[in-house]
Amino acid sequence: MQDRLEDVKAQVQTALEGAMSCLPDGELSDAMRYACIGGKRIRAFLVMESARLFGLGDKASLPVAAAVEALHAYSLVHDDLPAMDNDDLRRGLPTVHVQWSEATAILAGDALQTLAFGLLTDAQTGSAEVRLALVRGLSEAVGARGMVWGQALDIAAETAITPLDIVAIKRLQQAKTGALIQFAATAGAVMAGEDPAPLAEYAKNLGLAFQIQDDVLDVTGDPEAIGKRTGKDKAANKATFVSLLGLEGAQDKARKLVRHAEAALEPYGEAAGNLRQLARFVIERDA
Amino acid sequence: MQDRLEDVKAQVQTALEGAMSCLPDGELSDAMRYACIGGKRIRAFLVMESARLFGLGDKASLPVAAAVEALHAYSLVHDDLPAMDNDDLRRGLPTVHVQWSEATAILAGDALQTLAFGLLTDAQTGSAEVRLALVRGLSEAVGARGMVWGQALDIAAETAITPLDIVAIKRLQQAKTGALIQFAATAGAVMAGEDPAPLAEYAKNLGLAFQIQDDVLDVTGDPEAIGKRTGKDKAANKATFVSLLGLEGAQDKARKLVRHAEAALEPYGEAAGNLRQLARFVIERDA
Repeated sequence: MQDRLEDVKAQVQTALEGAMSCLPDGELSDAMRYACIGGKRIRAFLVMESARLFGLGDKASLPVAAAVEALHAYSLVHDDLPAMDNDDLRRGLPTVHVQWSEATAILAGDALQTLAFGLLTDAQTGSAEVRLALVRGLSEAVGARGMVWGQALDIAAETAITPLDIVAIKRLQQAKTGALIQFAATAGAVMAGEDPAPLAEYAKNLGLAFQIQDDVLDVTGDPEAIGKRTGKDKAANKATFVSLLGLEGAQDKARKLVRHAEAALEPYGEAAGNLRQLARFVIERDA
Repeated sequence: MQDRLEDVKAQVQTALEGAMSCLPDGELSDAMRYACIGGKRIRAFLVMESARLFGLGDKASLPVAAAVEALHAYSLVHDDLPAMDNDDLRRGLPTVHVQWSEATAILAGDALQTLAFGLLTDAQTGSAEVRLALVRGLSEAVGARGMVWGQALDIAAETAITPLDIVAIKRLQQAKTGALIQFAATAGAVMAGEDPAPLAEYAKNLGLAFQIQDDVLDVTGDPEAIGKRTGKDKAANKATFVSLLGLEGAQDKARKLVRHAEAALEPYGEAAGNLRQLARFVIERDA
């Protein structure tokens, strides 16, 4: 699984660089490229491994994987802005607005979202119907009923008088990070015209486990390894899975979710080995 | 032409409200709806009239027109942000970040861009190939080689030591406003699978004339009628078509461009009457 993850990382980096190779020189394209450096590429891995389940090679799935990572990079650049989470460190480097300016960060994020939709039109990926279904799916996942809504809920929670309860946090995270993860994990089924339900179930559990582990690492993690500041949730008095369930309770919950995620992959048999390992990796990671 | 423009306005408003009717309640969806109120809807008009040239009815072109207006609305919300042009008035109302917050304005703009791409997948518009060509075209027009690049150039110009010359301003405006206008005006040809070249030529001239008139109105216009502050360019010591060509020189140039725009419509004969009138309207408008 780790080898495949490294392979995906390298392929996605090349694809993103290729997609941005014809951009005019300047701060904007520099900032876009910078925002796309590094990252665990878990979403790209989900796209390319889910495609493999249905016999679809990397040539077809790579543009979709690159699109998902461009979209994810845009969301991080905007989330880090002073008006949002106000983070100055990301993936071990200064955030885009620190490195350049707020204006450049807003525009680089905007253009990365545009790029993501453009990448989905790549002819390698499949028929026009397939690519259009991906465009529609991404639009549903990351808009005002998905990722951006989740971010709006997150910001609203910061100034709310009563902290969120567990139901509200689940809903928030399902939108903020879950929807894009679900899009990524079901992309292969969409490309193959197969039923995405088992992968959606896998992704739902995986996404929540991933978020719980993020909350755990905010308490237990090493900022150097993670590449961003920790302890922020507690300092902001923010309700998290850890504050609501306790550290052990949260870790138990994450393990349970990972078991559900693995179970959902049953229909795919051994072909889903990498996806199973990813689920375990998500809660075992220390960064 | 004015009747048709009113008709387009009403249809687009209904389509945008429909597209946003299922969004969760909250500041985010409120801000998105607010950002879509009003406007001249010239881009929507271009989509729906260019579609008509090829016998395509409003049912097919309306989702594309709504997409273009959602995209345009997103660009205005982000352009108005404090880190960008820092405008507090737009279409006669407080800008989104003044009405709510910077975070809500960033997110509402983000989600409006997502919505725009989603609208292009509407089955009414045509075959999957056609809709995919529109997605690709929009992505090209509004990303880091189009609209967002133009905005980045515009912001860079504000702090540049030497003001832009006429060639640089043309390039900037062709990207910042011209590319989306060109996408809108050629959408009908793309939908019909016909040659978009004459409409692209029309749009190139129209877009530049439109921008020159904007510069003219920044000097001569009535802020109440325009719905935003005027005199900003001069106060910022910004190079504009007026500062470079003089008021009369700029007006002459705009008239010449409109004649070119009209000439480009020749292949379509009388069917292009509304598009011809729009070109004249663009330089005769006082708001």
